[in-house]
Amino acid sequence: MDTPARPPLNFDPLDPVALTQALIRCPSVTPHEGGALALLDHVLSAHGYVVERPVFSAPGTADVENLYARIGTQAPLFVIAGHTDVVPVGDTAAWTRDPFGGALEEGMVHGRGACDMKGGLSAMVAAVLRFRRENPDAPGSIAFLVTGDEEGPAVNGTVKLLDWAHGRGERFDHCLLGEPTNPATMSDMIKIGRRGSLTGRLTVNGKQGHVGYPHLADNPIRGMVRLLAALDATPLDAGTQHFDPSNLEVTTLDVGNPATNVVPAQAKAVFNIRFNDVWTPETLAAEIERRLREAAGNAVRYEISFEPTNAVAFLTQPGPFVAMVADAVEVETGQRPALSTTGGTSDARFIKSYCPVVEYGPVGKTMHQVNESVAVADLLALERITHRLLTAYFAVQHET
Amino acid sequence: MDTPARPPLNFDPLDPVALTQALIRCPSVTPHEGGALALLDHVLSAHGYVVERPVFSAPGTADVENLYARIGTQAPLFVIAGHTDVVPVGDTAAWTRDPFGGALEEGMVHGRGACDMKGGLSAMVAAVLRFRRENPDAPGSIAFLVTGDEEGPAVNGTVKLLDWAHGRGERFDHCLLGEPTNPATMSDMIKIGRRGSLTGRLTVNGKQGHVGYPHLADNPIRGMVRLLAALDATPLDAGTQHFDPSNLEVTTLDVGNPATNVVPAQAKAVFNIRFNDVWTPETLAAEIERRLREAAGNAVRYEISFEPTNAVAFLTQPGPFVAMVADAVEVETGQRPALSTTGGTSDARFIKSYCPVVEYGPVGKTMHQVNESVAVADLLALERITHRLLTAYFAVQHET
Repeated sequence: MDTPARPPLNFDPLDPVALTQALIRCPSVTPHEGGALALLDHVLSAHGYVVERPVFSAPGTADVENLYARIGTQAPLFVIAGHTDVVPVGDTAAWTRDPFGGALEEGMVHGRGACDMKGGLSAMVAAVLRFRRENPDAPGSIAFLVTGDEEGPAVNGTVKLLDWAHGRGERFDHCLLGEPTNPATMSDMIKIGRRGSLTGRLTVNGKQGHVGYPHLADNPIRGMVRLLAALDATPLDAGTQHFDPSNLEVTTLDVGNPATNVVPAQAKAVFNIRFNDVWTPETLAAEIERRLREAAGNAVRYEISFEPTNAVAFLTQPGPFVAMVADAVEVETGQRPALSTTGGTSDARFIKSYCPVVEYGPVGKTMHQVNESVAVADLLALERITHRLLTAYFAVQHET
Repeated sequence: MDTPARPPLNFDPLDPVALTQALIRCPSVTPHEGGALALLDHVLSAHGYVVERPVFSAPGTADVENLYARIGTQAPLFVIAGHTDVVPVGDTAAWTRDPFGGALEEGMVHGRGACDMKGGLSAMVAAVLRFRRENPDAPGSIAFLVTGDEEGPAVNGTVKLLDWAHGRGERFDHCLLGEPTNPATMSDMIKIGRRGSLTGRLTVNGKQGHVGYPHLADNPIRGMVRLLAALDATPLDAGTQHFDPSNLEVTTLDVGNPATNVVPAQAKAVFNIRFNDVWTPETLAAEIERRLREAAGNAVRYEISFEPTNAVAFLTQPGPFVAMVADAVEVETGQRPALSTTGGTSDARFIKSYCPVVEYGPVGKTMHQVNESVAVADLLALERITHRLLTAYFAVQHET
């Protein structure tokens, strides 16, 4: 993409702290680009990357800018994935510092996106720039796959960017996604998969009436309690080698009847299941339907529907690539990280269809909260870990 | 009470149909008097009754007019109780006739209050007027105790009118309340008691969190389902000689969480129990608290509160008075009515503290609905039954 001549940067992009600060100062709340992708474009273009910034659209959603940058033309192609969009600030008054100020105080960089995930992305960009400067003739290629639609509907983001890149002949070999994976310290956890997510909507229909004449009414709350108890009675599974047991949470349950002398006509519940690799969305929906059918018998009239989901459970099998990431973390932190599949979903669920993907990034304790921050020490560690991983990666023959 | 001179009535108040029509034409939706008590005052004053119309007030509620009328000065004092207020019309467009028109068509009188309870009250007034005209020297006294606050908060109605009358030295011996007690035909049912009503509010407190990290959250819906299942697991009792089993209905259950990836912090439920003479509100609340405590163990954090209630279970023991009412129904309809304690509450729960009370009145199928109506045949039957009861009552020595 042709870009106009730009003034020189006023910071060193090989410094992960300075780059994190600069990105935080771009107010890129989904779906606004906020200058964040332009900044990356500037940095990467200046270092010889071919940068593209495709905009994707869909009816009912905002247009979203994305960025794809590559250096090198040969295989293997190592991809670093991430997003520059951030969740809203929330209660501005509760922040002790400007959420878009990027202040560096007390060993922390402060602001929205500090750990989710401008910090992780910055440390990886800095590491790649240093690695390529030190190894200008390294074999293979490195690409950045960066979206501005991870925290939003995720319709015009990574899923389309992957398809777009694939359509242009890009063939990814391995991917590192810099989401905040560590609960407390940089040696805690890398993620080698994610559970799937399935949301169901359950309605129980009864018959309205007066509480004084219960034989003329049919209380749907009684049926709802029976169905929900049945869904919760037996674990969905016992977990698998790399996954926790699948888990169902009822997220809301609503009747909305203000009259204490009236039996209501209907009760509604919504539940969400985070499921492991025992299930596909289809087999899981069938199991839920079976449990409901058995519990309901002829006594409870209900309707169940499931929201479409693109969040299936997936696992990047532990092997040489996963070991390489874990090795890099262990050498730099002194402790071997756990291989985990816990937590919510991420764009890794899309990337896994193109190449093995591992997630590793900053301590996520303050993500999505007021006073989000990331430790300078963690940014520097992540830069070193990424650098070490790249060094190892491009020194060997590859298999998953 | 001194009343101004009035024009003569344009109908015969000894005709229960005409009196029902005239009362329906008074738009006496609680708390509005609507001319209904003035009409009764007019009728009863003209027939020699001493009529009083006390207005009662309480903070936060509308002032309400009531009527007390008595003829005779000696014991026994037989009281006919009722109310002239009606529930709102509801969906006006759904009525096929003017809800305050009192149309007489197809053998029915149509309008709001036709069966609940302007029809019943009218038939009883007509019967009393005929009985006194035929028996001007009958021993004892007859009184009408009529409120305009039965369908509303019931604060400025019967409960205060009873206290007011008692304070003036009125001593009731027996009471007939003309509420619609019959499900389908006039021979179905007289009510000799009512269940009590107790409303509880249950809150379960959990801990909000992300569905992807269930170990960091505590879903209050899980606890709520457990507590509600426990409340419903065992019947409260098996019923008693004259009462159905006590029954608990959960009337609403609300969480109000719109986010399908968030475990909510709190769930709330409201339940209402219609209870028999096994329980007082206090013993019943203690039993509910015991069940909740056992089901919750240390796993569920909850709060329970009960609304104050004046609706305790009561029974007018079957005996000579109850038999006298049942006899009158049987002679006029050819079938002996059931002695029942089913259905909702009524002002009988207040009257029972002053004297034995029995309820008997029109078929209630259309009460509180659009196109409320009462059959002319039923009004005439009720007039005859009341007349027969009065004849029997004032012919004998009394005990309950």
